[in-house]
Amino acid sequence: MKNCQVLLINRPTEVAQADDFKIVETDPDPLPQGSFRVVNHFLSVDPAMRGWIADEGNYASPVPLGSVMRSLAAGEVVESKHPDFAVGTLLSGWFGWQEQCVVTPDAVVRRITEADLPLSLSLGILGINGVTAHLALTTIGQPIAGETVLVSTAAGAVGSAVGQIANLLGCRTIGVAGGKRKCNLCVDEFGFAAAIDYKQPDLEYAIRAVSPAGVDVYFDNVAGPISDAVYPNLALNARIIVCGTASIATWKPWPSGPRVERYLLTKRARMQGFVIFDHDTEYLASVAQLATWVREGKLHYREDILDGIEACPGALAGLYRGENEGKRLIRL
Amino acid sequence: MKNCQVLLINRPTEVAQADDFKIVETDPDPLPQGSFRVVNHFLSVDPAMRGWIADEGNYASPVPLGSVMRSLAAGEVVESKHPDFAVGTLLSGWFGWQEQCVVTPDAVVRRITEADLPLSLSLGILGINGVTAHLALTTIGQPIAGETVLVSTAAGAVGSAVGQIANLLGCRTIGVAGGKRKCNLCVDEFGFAAAIDYKQPDLEYAIRAVSPAGVDVYFDNVAGPISDAVYPNLALNARIIVCGTASIATWKPWPSGPRVERYLLTKRARMQGFVIFDHDTEYLASVAQLATWVREGKLHYREDILDGIEACPGALAGLYRGENEGKRLIRL
Repeated sequence: MKNCQVLLINRPTEVAQADDFKIVETDPDPLPQGSFRVVNHFLSVDPAMRGWIADEGNYASPVPLGSVMRSLAAGEVVESKHPDFAVGTLLSGWFGWQEQCVVTPDAVVRRITEADLPLSLSLGILGINGVTAHLALTTIGQPIAGETVLVSTAAGAVGSAVGQIANLLGCRTIGVAGGKRKCNLCVDEFGFAAAIDYKQPDLEYAIRAVSPAGVDVYFDNVAGPISDAVYPNLALNARIIVCGTASIATWKPWPSGPRVERYLLTKRARMQGFVIFDHDTEYLASVAQLATWVREGKLHYREDILDGIEACPGALAGLYRGENEGKRLIRL
Repeated sequence: MKNCQVLLINRPTEVAQADDFKIVETDPDPLPQGSFRVVNHFLSVDPAMRGWIADEGNYASPVPLGSVMRSLAAGEVVESKHPDFAVGTLLSGWFGWQEQCVVTPDAVVRRITEADLPLSLSLGILGINGVTAHLALTTIGQPIAGETVLVSTAAGAVGSAVGQIANLLGCRTIGVAGGKRKCNLCVDEFGFAAAIDYKQPDLEYAIRAVSPAGVDVYFDNVAGPISDAVYPNLALNARIIVCGTASIATWKPWPSGPRVERYLLTKRARMQGFVIFDHDTEYLASVAQLATWVREGKLHYREDILDGIEACPGALAGLYRGENEGKRLIRL
């Protein structure tokens, strides 16, 4: 049996397109002592992949050209030469865009123990997206009941979780999303008190209209013009969580925007970057809390599942075009 | 005896110049029950005055046209109808650019009890500047011994205190200042490990050369191009204290600059505004600590004293031209 892999073959300066990848069939790797073979059932597609591909400064070293595209995946141990990872164990981890891989324990994010819940959730609401939403909101945002929490990409995998968790914490939530359909999803499915379509002539005014007392917590996944419309609406002592910069197509050349210093100064606001990989020690406790909320019906999620490894190359570009509703996954 | 007052008569969009003020002689105010008369000995000149004059959003309501220019001052009670403020009491407070004033206790910042130290210090190193340096550095910057602390306007009243306090806390300090003379002052008088003249072709590179491991704490008084050269040099988990925006001549129209979101994200950095007026409860303890350091010879300061109320109108513009060395004051 061959192993299908998706290799990165170009390093684009903007979002990677389908032809920046190539699908190849290779012979499966041998299995050295201390390692185990994982067959992937779901591959993750994340906005952060753009940063992993770029060769500019980032929080992770760039994916080497010609190598398997770095990604999270959920799979099952099918062959093992490691005493702690028995055949049949379900895992999420850094298994890459490929059908199978031979890995050691350092590639594993966690064992998937929620047998009552779909395996795919380990890549979304019970994975990097849900945990990011939960930990970034609570550790940096520190929302207090009654405060107003505004979220960009509010219908997305992270944003929709942020809104629901903020609601659970007693906050008033405002979602910003692209188009009427996603805005309706924010309100009807994810319980945002209000949703604002960013594709409108005066976003700054629209935000003010629904949050006249100001935004206490801004959970930002986009940067760019949407954020520029939020900054003038910050409340005193506001917190801004910089979780992603999805609206910026490239940082070469570095883009300019309205300076934030004066907003931060006059509002005594705090703006801080969040990267999930700093939070290993809190990860499993966060997953447990999220799973409880999912089981109680308090935390809803959407998945956007594409079938077959041949869907991988175009999946990231489609994500940046906003064509998905909810967490994008590849099912193998 | 008449009271000379400096009135604000124009509201400039940039820094106020001498002809935006007018000096008038008026009859002294009567003294109602519960108030007291203060004769000012020193008037303060602070960069923040530009913001108090502007009518755009700020942390304080704008000084009304035709009224006495808002300022801190140090003076003495000469007549009192308040049981707690005896004649002869020395005070710092919001007494304005004028020779004397009739005030109630809410205008008082503190009683000046350091009889062994010059009265003028209550407006500088033992006043708003020293306390800002101390509290902003420790509460937002949270420097750890061995870390690198970079300060803009490093030869100024706030910056020079920041550098010395950071040294006392065991940090390595880098000052950014304008011109060779001020840079020498930073190193020779205020003990910065290195000083960088911002008037040079490649400031970003110059900062990297003296802090190759990155800047852990950036105490920013300027925003603008100096900050733009610091952001690419941030260390992981850096803290940025937004204390002032002195390099920005006007926020109408709002200026643009390189977007900070990506720096904050990739470096998990935190950027936060500081306004001294939020810190009333910590003020006196901070003054006591600063006074101890001054008496021990561990905290040096410079004063730039102009004589006579007629020096007021042009004093702020001169400050923004960088003509002062140390805390600018008017002595009456």
